[in-house]
Amino acid sequence: MPDPYRQIIDRLTASRRVLVSTHVRPDGDAIGTTAALVLAMRKVGVESEVLLLSHLPTKYAFVYSENQIIYHDVEKGWPERFGFERFDVLLVVDTGTWSQLPGLRQRVEPLSMPKIVIDHHLTQEDWAELKLVIPEAAAAGEIAAELIELWPIPIDQAIATALFVAITSDTGWFQFANTRPFTHRLAATLIEKGVDTDRIYQLLYQNERAERVALQTRAMQSLELLADGRLAVMRLSRQDFADTRASVPDTENLINVPLQIRTVQVSVLVIEPPDQGPVRISLRSKGQIDVARFAEEFGGGGHARAAGLKLHATLQEAHDRVVEALLSRMT
Amino acid sequence: MPDPYRQIIDRLTASRRVLVSTHVRPDGDAIGTTAALVLAMRKVGVESEVLLLSHLPTKYAFVYSENQIIYHDVEKGWPERFGFERFDVLLVVDTGTWSQLPGLRQRVEPLSMPKIVIDHHLTQEDWAELKLVIPEAAAAGEIAAELIELWPIPIDQAIATALFVAITSDTGWFQFANTRPFTHRLAATLIEKGVDTDRIYQLLYQNERAERVALQTRAMQSLELLADGRLAVMRLSRQDFADTRASVPDTENLINVPLQIRTVQVSVLVIEPPDQGPVRISLRSKGQIDVARFAEEFGGGGHARAAGLKLHATLQEAHDRVVEALLSRMT
Repeated sequence: MPDPYRQIIDRLTASRRVLVSTHVRPDGDAIGTTAALVLAMRKVGVESEVLLLSHLPTKYAFVYSENQIIYHDVEKGWPERFGFERFDVLLVVDTGTWSQLPGLRQRVEPLSMPKIVIDHHLTQEDWAELKLVIPEAAAAGEIAAELIELWPIPIDQAIATALFVAITSDTGWFQFANTRPFTHRLAATLIEKGVDTDRIYQLLYQNERAERVALQTRAMQSLELLADGRLAVMRLSRQDFADTRASVPDTENLINVPLQIRTVQVSVLVIEPPDQGPVRISLRSKGQIDVARFAEEFGGGGHARAAGLKLHATLQEAHDRVVEALLSRMT
Repeated sequence: MPDPYRQIIDRLTASRRVLVSTHVRPDGDAIGTTAALVLAMRKVGVESEVLLLSHLPTKYAFVYSENQIIYHDVEKGWPERFGFERFDVLLVVDTGTWSQLPGLRQRVEPLSMPKIVIDHHLTQEDWAELKLVIPEAAAAGEIAAELIELWPIPIDQAIATALFVAITSDTGWFQFANTRPFTHRLAATLIEKGVDTDRIYQLLYQNERAERVALQTRAMQSLELLADGRLAVMRLSRQDFADTRASVPDTENLINVPLQIRTVQVSVLVIEPPDQGPVRISLRSKGQIDVARFAEEFGGGGHARAAGLKLHATLQEAHDRVVEALLSRMT
């Protein structure tokens, strides 16, 4: 069986210009991995540009801007002619499904452009000519690191920093259960290549708006502990967003705060979005209860420990329905 | 020059029974490292017991209780005769100074018992016959791991877990600037030996009382952002402790919450303790301002990024004095 690493290296090396893309709403793994691959290819004379299907998140923008990475953001609409013919290969990282690449399929399928996928997600489709999928990898960045080492292309400080952003983002800074020995050994190597870990920590975790902390305070003031402290419920109303001038992205990670309490098995955050959409309910579990199965009953989904659902109801109604259903499962 | 690792291994191997001790108010590194060494010596037939100068912290008690580690807690007073003569060696870890070992010096100095120190702190004294001090180690647990590997004693799941508690505690789960490539490589090895990292994370970071979260909410409600958002100040009154039924140890890490805000350079927490003692002021810095130097001006001390001081004043007076002094330095 041909080695997919070598096949991908050979195909990319033989290209003049590569278009790199990743999933909609890119996270740190998506941005870090695309950047690391662009920088690596640059070292062997292969030009590349990134196609982003959503805006570049402010939090991760430094990874691109510090390295003069050329990217095209089509969130607000595609240009009449994108110019795919300028590229020899489409390299997609951190997803293997068209649904995560809105607008790309209809534009790319009619072309003869070869497609490569590098990913660590279980859900995959079969449209790429070359695929490198390693589900046990904590991040796509781990696979990119292997590829760059095998190429071989020397990992410099810039590549190391991009890869470090990728792996720390997808593991919650080495905290989530996907963190494996490989992840720590890669981190050791990247630090030796010059990653300023202190700076990366500040950029990823100490770079929030004050509005976010005000919103967190509101959420914590609403905390209810139910079922002998096993169920934690917080809520944020439209008024909370207005008073604190925060927005929905500021709610990221707030749901984890009650998990620090010993007795809490499930944390719920009920959000009435300022934009009049449906009420959004996020769920986190420490493992005893499968919140994905719970969310599915309400048309939502996710993972066993992190799931979500939406309800067309008032904040109070949505809160009551979800809490009642959870309580009936926890007693 | 003789190898201190080998000298210590030889001395411990030649002992029948070793007394292991560590600094007052033991942290995760102290508890994890003492446990790992007791377990390692047990594997080569050397009995050992731990002498704790403070109570075993609840958070880390599992490390001892799961491994039937014998320990003596003298926080409430020493027995009339401790029975030092039962031990051949005193092995002190995670400190090298008598001031961190209250009550031990006067009891041990008159005896002929040899003393060994394994530590990573810069401040050292010269009373131990054998010393192994590695200041660049992130934790004493890193040095213990090296010693156990060189012995050689196989690292089993129990030893690996104790060492993992040691290194994650002293690095804030690989976050502080002391985390080095060695730390990550050791973590990789320990995970391969069977550490349940998810369980350790829950025991160390998701094992708090609900009262703590209530107190955190109070602190966050008091948040002031001054000097264009560069200075964050929170306060907790005696009334806050009474209302939330929290106690002073519940304030641990609360001061870090405002550091998530991009603009904040210094975070201050002003605490009026429920026990009528002086007002306690904690200071944290992201690096631009040396809070140890600031604290020293008020008779306090600490590190450049984490310091503290005490003031005999009302909560409001203490708050005003510290804020005024900080503002004059930040403009």
